[in-house]
Amino acid sequence: MSPTLARLSPVDATWTEPERALLRRMAGSDILSIRQFAPDELKTLLDVVERFERVTAPLLQGKVLGALFFEPSTRTRLSFESSMTRLGGGVIGFADVQSTSVTKGESLHDTIRMAECYCDLIVIRHPHEGAARVAAEATARPVINGGDGSNQHPTQTLLDLYTIRRRCGRLSDLRIGFLGDLKYGRAAHSLIEAAGALGNELVLISPPELQLPALRREELSEHDVRFMETEDLDAAIPGLDVLYVTRIQQERFGDPLEFERVRNAYQIDITILDHAKPTMIVMHPLPRVNEIHPSLDASPQAAYFEQARNGVTVRKALLSILLERLP
Amino acid sequence: MSPTLARLSPVDATWTEPERALLRRMAGSDILSIRQFAPDELKTLLDVVERFERVTAPLLQGKVLGALFFEPSTRTRLSFESSMTRLGGGVIGFADVQSTSVTKGESLHDTIRMAECYCDLIVIRHPHEGAARVAAEATARPVINGGDGSNQHPTQTLLDLYTIRRRCGRLSDLRIGFLGDLKYGRAAHSLIEAAGALGNELVLISPPELQLPALRREELSEHDVRFMETEDLDAAIPGLDVLYVTRIQQERFGDPLEFERVRNAYQIDITILDHAKPTMIVMHPLPRVNEIHPSLDASPQAAYFEQARNGVTVRKALLSILLERLP
Amino acid sequence: MSPTLARLSPVDATWTEPERALLRRMAGSDILSIRQFAPDELKTLLDVVERFERVTAPLLQGKVLGALFFEPSTRTRLSFESSMTRLGGGVIGFADVQSTSVTKGESLHDTIRMAECYCDLIVIRHPHEGAARVAAEATARPVINGGDGSNQHPTQTLLDLYTIRRRCGRLSDLRIGFLGDLKYGRAAHSLIEAAGALGNELVLISPPELQLPALRREELSEHDVRFMETEDLDAAIPGLDVLYVTRIQQERFGDPLEFERVRNAYQIDITILDHAKPTMIVMHPLPRVNEIHPSLDASPQAAYFEQARNGVTVRKALLSILLERLP
Repeated sequence: MSPTLARLSPVDATWTEPERALLRRMAGSDILSIRQFAPDELKTLLDVVERFERVTAPLLQGKVLGALFFEPSTRTRLSFESSMTRLGGGVIGFADVQSTSVTKGESLHDTIRMAECYCDLIVIRHPHEGAARVAAEATARPVINGGDGSNQHPTQTLLDLYTIRRRCGRLSDLRIGFLGDLKYGRAAHSLIEAAGALGNELVLISPPELQLPALRREELSEHDVRFMETEDLDAAIPGLDVLYVTRIQQERFGDPLEFERVRNAYQIDITILDHAKPTMIVMHPLPRVNEIHPSLDASPQAAYFEQARNGVTVRKALLSILLERLP
Repeated sequence: MSPTLARLSPVDATWTEPERALLRRMAGSDILSIRQFAPDELKTLLDVVERFERVTAPLLQGKVLGALFFEPSTRTRLSFESSMTRLGGGVIGFADVQSTSVTKGESLHDTIRMAECYCDLIVIRHPHEGAARVAAEATARPVINGGDGSNQHPTQTLLDLYTIRRRCGRLSDLRIGFLGDLKYGRAAHSLIEAAGALGNELVLISPPELQLPALRREELSEHDVRFMETEDLDAAIPGLDVLYVTRIQQERFGDPLEFERVRNAYQIDITILDHAKPTMIVMHPLPRVNEIHPSLDASPQAAYFEQARNGVTVRKALLSILLERLP
Repeated sequence: MSPTLARLSPVDATWTEPERALLRRMAGSDILSIRQFAPDELKTLLDVVERFERVTAPLLQGKVLGALFFEPSTRTRLSFESSMTRLGGGVIGFADVQSTSVTKGESLHDTIRMAECYCDLIVIRHPHEGAARVAAEATARPVINGGDGSNQHPTQTLLDLYTIRRRCGRLSDLRIGFLGDLKYGRAAHSLIEAAGALGNELVLISPPELQLPALRREELSEHDVRFMETEDLDAAIPGLDVLYVTRIQQERFGDPLEFERVRNAYQIDITILDHAKPTMIVMHPLPRVNEIHPSLDASPQAAYFEQARNGVTVRKALLSILLERLP
């Protein structure tokens, strides 16, 4: 649905003018793509998120979230469920498609029309690109994209940006390295786009098989984003403020030996910090398999579990904003 | 369990005398079949349901619903979960049998004896006819039949009747057409029975393969229900007040070509309204596959998504009545 | 995690001194094994549990339980969910491993690090021995072992002990018979250990194939527990105060005929009471298959469904104690 300017939220006097404007625009609307936020809106939105760090009031009492997970995703699902529950709301839905009417041949449009009868807003995770938009067009209820195929996962990107800002103190003029699977990785794609638009310099570190797709490279160039590509992890490390690691999946490789070679080459451990800035943080969307050795976990420079924690704050804020129940 | 006359509910003075009598009878009892309500009781019950349209109070705070789905049913499950959650109650249970003790050979009786320790009332969906009655006999807690095989699904019938009354202004003296699979369709069977008992005229439109079973036809005749059977959809349409469409399932047919022929013959779209009364409504228990073309969805005569919405109101009322927590 | 003496709970003046000491020690800690409670602590803990029989206040409002079931267990899961829900708390998690990141190769350690971001305490059920301890070491949140392989299931043992005390009036100086699979049965192992430590006499009744493992027998001897082993059920019955029956699983036997023979020999029905003390109670951790004939269910000496009911009281108490929210 489109933002409804008519339904003005009872925004408290403590909000700044840009915050009020953003809250009004987002009330009752959808979150489908990180692209729907201009760079200055992203900064304003993260200011609003920050206010939710200390919110424990049952703001969402009586509200029901429909969590429709057409493919399993423990992390995203539990994070949304936790956010809703902590604010006093309820959650209904399904964790995978096996126990749904979809197996009876129901269209996504109909499933959403059904769900809107049962809940106040919907988070959808779906294996197909564009599914979240189809869902949003089917209902007047707010829809949050919880990941649609290799397309978008905007709440992941928001929690990544929020983590960067809390750790680095700013959202721009950083040098951010992306390591691993830059060809298929949805989380990396979204963050590359947003971080570029916010005026950061990007260092794309991957094997040739998993480079950023040409189309995305061209988009970066069109928007005058400063970026460089390299296969050489060691050479890239010293200048980075952030190293964003992604999972390399075996199924992307035809040759198992080639997979092993690539995986070993881009696996990091505590020694990576020897040549890094003492302020460089290591991020990962999780789950990880072997990309980051547990020896790094105890380091204050490891930020990946903090990302998961920040995800709850981000989602608490988004749920409250869309449902117009502000602290 | 049987209704316990002893546990009188604190029925408010605003209820009418027939409403009070019904509420007393239903308090703490089971809902296993639509047959347990006489025609005048159905009307009274729908009056009570109507009062729940505006109820948002946490009437069921502290109460727990056990949702035991021995076969998947997203719609029914989410509808009950939503109703319970909106009234402040909690829900526990399972969405399919894979993650239950049933796979260890536990009897239904024992599963229910276990569940009654954990919740205040039970809704059960089960592939076998009569399972809901077995459940009700095992426990003193109220049990709601959420569909048992091809037998009964009383809350579906109640929401169908509620939708008809809201749209047509009455529950009797209507001409109601049933289209599609009248042989196996549980929702159609229950509604045919109830609509007949309420004094409506029935038009049964189906291919010969999917006609109403002989036993059910005889029952209609015994109860002096006016009904006719036809294969001719176009001829039947002009006189109808309600057209209730059902899904035709491929697995009912041995010959795939025969399935295609039948399905195409009984598929409807927006043009069906050209020859219908301007007040005729189109209903469907959902999920649909191809029976109703989406071109009909935007018409005010399409009532099928409203049925899903009404399902929440009906179930909110039933949960509150059985648990004796009235507004 | 270790008990944090720093975080003193606001223990009410009505608690006895031993109760206060135990509550302080347990606040924020884990429940991994029944062995972590000394005999006198078990008695004190059950005194505390008893106070929760009448507690209905929303003590756990705003708190979230993470229910991580890496293998299905309806009974334990629903019991924890019910306890949490009845006290006003929320529950998130998964009922089996299929819909989790574990299928992506995530380690248990990482799954727990994720979960701790989303909830206030964790109950874990896992097919591998020691999994609960691994979980507890990964997080500062309280962890409850909901069963790890054939190792421990401490909340089951606590509800068994609670049932024995309520029915027999005491926790020691009883003669307790254990019947069936004493080789693999986790519930029996834990209770044998605890009941022995509490000063009861044990009668271990099983076929040779399913005797208590030698190591466990030696442990009993080392702790001076009085116990005897026998194959003869009929001879053992007259002296018993408690008969604890367990399920004999076909998969333990290579030869199906041998399984049938054993199962039939140790199946009991209402006639077992003819030669028993009139006060002897029959217990079973459930689910049962054929071990106890339903003819026994109506007898006041059957205590197995009461065990399930007591499980909610025990778990309500434990959740409240660990989260330091006492009535």
